Amino acid sequence: MKKPIGIFDSGVGGLTVYKAIRDTFPEEDLIYFGDTARVPYGPKSPNTIIQYSVQNARFLLQQGIKSLIVACNTSSSVAIPQLKDLTNIPILGVIDPGSEIAIRYSKNKRIGVIGTEGTIRSEAYSKAIKLREPQAEVFSQACPLFVPLAEEGWQDHHVAHSIVREYLSPLLDKDIDTLVLGCTHYPLLANAIQDFLGDEVRLVDSANAIAEYLQSLLPEEHDGVLGKDNFYVSDNEDKFARIAERILGHRLNSLKRVRLYESWFID
Amino acid sequence: MKKPIGIFDSGVGGLTVYKAIRDTFPEEDLIYFGDTARVPYGPKSPNTIIQYSVQNARFLLQQGIKSLIVACNTSSSVAIPQLKDLTNIPILGVIDPGSEIAIRYSKNKRIGVIGTEGTIRSEAYSKAIKLREPQAEVFSQACPLFVPLAEEGWQDHHVAHSIVREYLSPLLDKDIDTLVLGCTHYPLLANAIQDFLGDEVRLVDSANAIAEYLQSLLPEEHDGVLGKDNFYVSDNEDKFARIAERILGHRLNSLKRVRLYESWFID
Repeated sequence: MKKPIGIFDSGVGGLTVYKAIRDTFPEEDLIYFGDTARVPYGPKSPNTIIQYSVQNARFLLQQGIKSLIVACNTSSSVAIPQLKDLTNIPILGVIDPGSEIAIRYSKNKRIGVIGTEGTIRSEAYSKAIKLREPQAEVFSQACPLFVPLAEEGWQDHHVAHSIVREYLSPLLDKDIDTLVLGCTHYPLLANAIQDFLGDEVRLVDSANAIAEYLQSLLPEEHDGVLGKDNFYVSDNEDKFARIAERILGHRLNSLKRVRLYESWFID
Repeated sequence: MKKPIGIFDSGVGGLTVYKAIRDTFPEEDLIYFGDTARVPYGPKSPNTIIQYSVQNARFLLQQGIKSLIVACNTSSSVAIPQLKDLTNIPILGVIDPGSEIAIRYSKNKRIGVIGTEGTIRSEAYSKAIKLREPQAEVFSQACPLFVPLAEEGWQDHHVAHSIVREYLSPLLDKDIDTLVLGCTHYPLLANAIQDFLGDEVRLVDSANAIAEYLQSLLPEEHDGVLGKDNFYVSDNEDKFARIAERILGHRLNSLKRVRLYESWFID
């Protein structure tokens, strides 16, 4: 029996991470969970992000996964220690791989990082980059409108270019030569971002970075049998399936809705 | 013992409704619940919106409320029947008051409605308006970027004007003379909207409408004692307090965080 690799994200954006892992590990079984009922995580408090991440991880652990990938940058920024308390299996977020690639790309060691409010407030990328490269200077910018913009499908709209200019002008002034796209949705805006920054700034997409990184962590499956996929979401399975088909280039053949038992109480 | 009026919203936007009710009913006790952990409701499926709305209502019912105001347009659009199954106390959403005011304002009976995906997909305003005025023509438009735009504080930014033009151009072509702002956040964008549509189009803000409507539903308190306020949120109480102060013009003196017991299960 193969044990699957588990991947969770706050929604549909983590499918770019799923895709990179599927392409790199064709024989692995993969389970993806997208918390589409509670997306976005970016504006939420650290405690709530941790609570939701732990719930998502528990669900995947119940499915017998052998390793856990946190595709969501916001979760990766604040919840990894609490996730490691849950289990001894390897747990990998997107911060470390993205930071390593950024350092490898950057010549002048002036690195920009964009992400959600939660990711930027945590300073997770900044700390991870400076831990590896103490001389590096990191310039961060939260871009709260990028996710709704990408979800609206306006990535090539003139409004996208105006919003990109508004958020990224301060970074351009800092003479960065590398920009970490610190949110799974942001690669959808890569064209508008590259247009504004110019070709001399390299963009880091952590989806590719994490797949490469994972190879050193995992004994790879080689049984000659193609891996199976299972997708779970907490809401809107039809919308998820539609966007997934656009990202992956094919239809999902296993997608299920998951629900929560819940009730409010006063703290 | 006074019994309080309960108000819930998906987040902070419903404070405009709270404010209108507080101004109209100074002696009533009010309890406000903002589901800031799971905001926004607009993109979620009807089932999830109903589930969340029922949980929020149950929490307020536990506090002994005598009537329930659903400030959130998305919840008001899809969850009122399920909320009425929970209790016999009066329950009022924002759709009916907003629709009545729109009919009263409109001379040519060509009425525009803007709201979240959930509100527009439900056709709740369109049905409520046509029920009262079968000759009316209703033109609807979902504006998913308006909420993040208002939350980013960019209501007077040139990007706001571009996005308003993009969403509202189709409505302007329909010769509407009245526009329902079918989301509690949208009054924050009223200037940009009015600029684009021109002064001949009247905007309907349901916060004021609902306070007036409520007078006919409730035996009013008259004991000479000013009403008490209690605010509850599910996340980010600091951010809520900050925005609340901006909307209300004074600080909140009673704000508590509420949590959920929850665990995933496969449907």
